[in-house]
Amino acid sequence: MQARLAAEAETIQAHLSRVLAPFGTGPVAEGMRYATQGGKRIRGFLVMESARLHDVPETAAIWPATAIEALHAYSLVHDDLPAMDNDDLRRGQPTVHIKWDEATAILVGDALQSLAFELVAHPDCGPAEVRAGLTLSLARAAGGQGMVLGQALDIAAETATTPLSLDEITTLQAGKTGALILWSATAGACMAHADMTPLSTYARALGLAFQIQDDVIDVTGDAAAAGKAVGKDAAAGKATFVSLLGLDGARARSASLVDAACDALSCYGERGERLRDLARFVISRQS
Amino acid sequence: MQARLAAEAETIQAHLSRVLAPFGTGPVAEGMRYATQGGKRIRGFLVMESARLHDVPETAAIWPATAIEALHAYSLVHDDLPAMDNDDLRRGQPTVHIKWDEATAILVGDALQSLAFELVAHPDCGPAEVRAGLTLSLARAAGGQGMVLGQALDIAAETATTPLSLDEITTLQAGKTGALILWSATAGACMAHADMTPLSTYARALGLAFQIQDDVIDVTGDAAAAGKAVGKDAAAGKATFVSLLGLDGARARSASLVDAACDALSCYGERGERLRDLARFVISRQS
Repeated sequence: MQARLAAEAETIQAHLSRVLAPFGTGPVAEGMRYATQGGKRIRGFLVMESARLHDVPETAAIWPATAIEALHAYSLVHDDLPAMDNDDLRRGQPTVHIKWDEATAILVGDALQSLAFELVAHPDCGPAEVRAGLTLSLARAAGGQGMVLGQALDIAAETATTPLSLDEITTLQAGKTGALILWSATAGACMAHADMTPLSTYARALGLAFQIQDDVIDVTGDAAAAGKAVGKDAAAGKATFVSLLGLDGARARSASLVDAACDALSCYGERGERLRDLARFVISRQS
Repeated sequence: MQARLAAEAETIQAHLSRVLAPFGTGPVAEGMRYATQGGKRIRGFLVMESARLHDVPETAAIWPATAIEALHAYSLVHDDLPAMDNDDLRRGQPTVHIKWDEATAILVGDALQSLAFELVAHPDCGPAEVRAGLTLSLARAAGGQGMVLGQALDIAAETATTPLSLDEITTLQAGKTGALILWSATAGACMAHADMTPLSTYARALGLAFQIQDDVIDVTGDAAAAGKAVGKDAAAGKATFVSLLGLDGARARSASLVDAACDALSCYGERGERLRDLARFVISRQS
């Protein structure tokens, strides 16, 4: 699985380098390249695989795959800012505001969000109907009713007097990480005008399992393996899936979510195996 | 002219309120509403008028008009942040990071950018071909080769050892304010699949005249009338059109640009008069 992820990551990386080449050599362009390097490319992989399942050509799927990675990178750059999570380290490297400065990091994130929409609306991505549809769903997944809403709930949770309940944390997660995962996993079906229900069910379970595993890593991982600071949530007294379910409970919950995710793909038969492998990988990862 | 601008502003405001209603009552949603209130709506007006010139229905044009105002509002919210221009006052009101906090201001700007693309890709905006085309051009105008590039050049200019030349300032302006004005003024022609050349020529001249007048206001205006801090550029020893051309020279330049902008619309005859009025208004305004 990791080899397959790595191969897809390389394809996505090459395409990102290509589209960023005309942006020149200023700090914002350099910061955009820096921020879009590395990472597991799980979201891009989901786009590529869901496209493959529906016989959408890779030359079309690479555009939304790169778009979602640009959008994800923007969210990390802004999330790491001092006024937000205040993180110095990301993927084992200094964060953008540490390597450059805060103004550059704000602009790099802003430009990466624009880039995501530029990529998803690119003519090579498919017919106009597909591009307009992907733009609309991506904007909704990213914005104030999707990812950004989740981030805002996350920040509010840090200063709340009572810790969040399991329901509240699940809502928060559905926005913060779930919305982009859902968009990614359904992109291929959307491009092929196919039924998005099986991939939606898969993505909702996967997204939640992914976040639970993140919380597990925050408790059990070490910073070197995770490539970022760990133990922050516990130190901040924040409610997490682990604090609410216990470590064993959280692991059991993510395992059953992965089973549900895999089952949701039964209509795809053997062809769904790569996405099932990804789901299993998500809860085995340590970073 | 001001009455016509005000009437169009009201239409745009009403539409923004409608599309923001489902965003709920959290700080990000409230901040989005707050940040999109007021302003002259020059960009939205340009969209509506260029659409009218090409017989594009108002019910379609309102979507890109609202989109560009959401995008403009995002750029102001981020531009006002302490790490950027560090402004406490905007349109006579506390800026978003003053009224709420920095994290909220970052998220409000991010969500407003997403909203802009959600609006421009909305089905009621027109056929998919139009929506995909507007998305692509808006993403390019907003991003690291357009507006954000201009903002980055502006920040670099503040710490540069030698002041910018007239050419450099013109390039900076073409990105920072020119790109969105160009997009707005050509949106109607784009929606009608018409020749965009006359409106492009108009918009380039108008955008430059607009920025020159901004520099004039920074020198001659008072904060109460401008609704924001003035005199900042001179205090910072920054090169501006006024410092490079002198006050009279800057005024003469913007007047001749407005003439050029008006001339560019000759093919539209009488129908172009509203956009000519707007160009004249732009260099007469004091805020």
